[in-house]
Amino acid sequence: MTEIILHEPLDMHLHLRDGAMLRTVAPLSAHSFSGALIMPNLVPPVTDAESLRAYRQRIREAIGNEVFEPYMTLFFKPEYDLDFLAPIAEELTAVKLYPAGITTNSEGGVRGFDIEELRPALGVLSELGIPLCIHGETGGFVMDREKEFVPIYEALADAFPDLTIIMEHITDAESIAALDRHPNLYATITLHHLLITLDEVAGGMLQPHLFCKPIAKRPEDREALLNAALNAHPKVMFGSDSAPHPRHAKEAPGCAAGVFTAPIALPVLAELFSRHGMPENLQHFVSNNARQIYGLNPPKKKVRLIDTPMRVPEKYGEVVPMFAGEEIGWSIDAVSVE
Amino acid sequence: MTEIILHEPLDMHLHLRDGAMLRTVAPLSAHSFSGALIMPNLVPPVTDAESLRAYRQRIREAIGNEVFEPYMTLFFKPEYDLDFLAPIAEELTAVKLYPAGITTNSEGGVRGFDIEELRPALGVLSELGIPLCIHGETGGFVMDREKEFVPIYEALADAFPDLTIIMEHITDAESIAALDRHPNLYATITLHHLLITLDEVAGGMLQPHLFCKPIAKRPEDREALLNAALNAHPKVMFGSDSAPHPRHAKEAPGCAAGVFTAPIALPVLAELFSRHGMPENLQHFVSNNARQIYGLNPPKKKVRLIDTPMRVPEKYGEVVPMFAGEEIGWSIDAVSVE
Repeated sequence: MTEIILHEPLDMHLHLRDGAMLRTVAPLSAHSFSGALIMPNLVPPVTDAESLRAYRQRIREAIGNEVFEPYMTLFFKPEYDLDFLAPIAEELTAVKLYPAGITTNSEGGVRGFDIEELRPALGVLSELGIPLCIHGETGGFVMDREKEFVPIYEALADAFPDLTIIMEHITDAESIAALDRHPNLYATITLHHLLITLDEVAGGMLQPHLFCKPIAKRPEDREALLNAALNAHPKVMFGSDSAPHPRHAKEAPGCAAGVFTAPIALPVLAELFSRHGMPENLQHFVSNNARQIYGLNPPKKKVRLIDTPMRVPEKYGEVVPMFAGEEIGWSIDAVSVE
Repeated sequence: MTEIILHEPLDMHLHLRDGAMLRTVAPLSAHSFSGALIMPNLVPPVTDAESLRAYRQRIREAIGNEVFEPYMTLFFKPEYDLDFLAPIAEELTAVKLYPAGITTNSEGGVRGFDIEELRPALGVLSELGIPLCIHGETGGFVMDREKEFVPIYEALADAFPDLTIIMEHITDAESIAALDRHPNLYATITLHHLLITLDEVAGGMLQPHLFCKPIAKRPEDREALLNAALNAHPKVMFGSDSAPHPRHAKEAPGCAAGVFTAPIALPVLAELFSRHGMPENLQHFVSNNARQIYGLNPPKKKVRLIDTPMRVPEKYGEVVPMFAGEEIGWSIDAVSVE
């Protein structure tokens, strides 16, 4: 039997939703992760201290006694200023910027990326040391949206050299290349983008449960992502972008975007890193890099993963996970807290 | 009011299926087209004179009194020889070659494209003057499958210079370019590939009713297809690839490939050609080119299309058409036969 012990695993891009869905999915992440960066794209989005505190409280209630830190984010608005952000800076781990209309509940996001228009708000983030997380896609052709956004990432990185910018859920080789050109650019990578390309979504029969934004790209893109993750590139972090939708919203015309991976992410990552002969690097990808980049000190949690297969449930509540009903090669053997 | 009169419209790539589905969809094509090239990928496929005659008879029964010629095809097998094909050559309009496993009911298709292995059968087709229709996709990455097949088309065209080869339902600019390099290469283009790119399938929410094989490609590919069709390129023909599946097979994980366009194809084409200022070229695209390439003499049928909007039904039987429930700008005003 082979094992991998992880300390303080972190999911640096997580959708917990709200209400009944929050109560279904939050415990699944809280069981195996020490903490997660919680996305603010609720309806309405989390844009002030009051809604942030209330959401954090609902998350805490949903996870019960699990040891788990919800690292909170605000939904970026260009009008954020020092008076607004300074008093709540300690309660925030990041601010998340969405281009308008680019994904689920992003209608209130940014239109155009005029550096001068964004300068006041981004200057304040930079001054307060609050990282800016960006969903980096243009409104262009679906396979080009992320690479078209790379020059915007680069312009922002140049214009705000002291701002930590996280390129969220990157999916193509151009984004990986940009990481090495700018000291203040970092990235999260999902589990599913390490595993699939557009072939798995639409190359055989169409698979709505693998449909997500950004869409999975080409084999050479997946290769670049995998190479960065497996080799513990110090600027990339695991962020599942686990995005639950009820089954009926996925299995119908107008299928919602998102892959639900939170409960199976750690065993599948363990299998992936082990198969590629890099088990020791998983600790960096799922925890150390994030702690370094964000300056986090997550609650202690030790997760023991072993190469004993497990059968993935068909559903968690109304949500169909990746690998639903299939056997995966690794499983969680034990979770311990101090 | 603007009108377009079409004489003997032809659909040179049509799936009519069998049984109850055949009885649902065949009358819809037979109403507005003079004839159609009928695909042989039934279960089991149409591979001999007996099954071909029986299928033609079932089609005739399904269309009732409509004036409509089902141009029949056989599913290509490398073992076809002169003794087998010569006696039924008059009953065949073409032979359809599928790479194994590349689309619906293609499991019995060709594996590998060894010219010498194919030489006996393709030599006979060439000798008998029977066109060879090919679904040209490799097993590569979904966005590259057709362009990867272009060298195979070209090798076949060179090896069998007297064989008429139809590149079926082409979707990318490379295929259009190949048309002009080989005198014996021709192509069909669907309605949906003139209208959509991967953006419409997976750029917003996921749209299973627009999922087809080959998958819709990039904007520059659609542009190349549209340019050829609108300008009445003499080597391209309309072939709807209208491919009905019951709704439950489309709106579920493992969604079947195919867009159902037969009943709305002519009004939408009329609107498209009219909007681009090329109404007079539609006659070439939907009839004259095919008559020339295949040497057909279809039954007389005159279709009058007008720019009066119509509401597309939500379903035809259990099949959801393209533009279901939407209004399209043109409609069929009258169909007359001699």
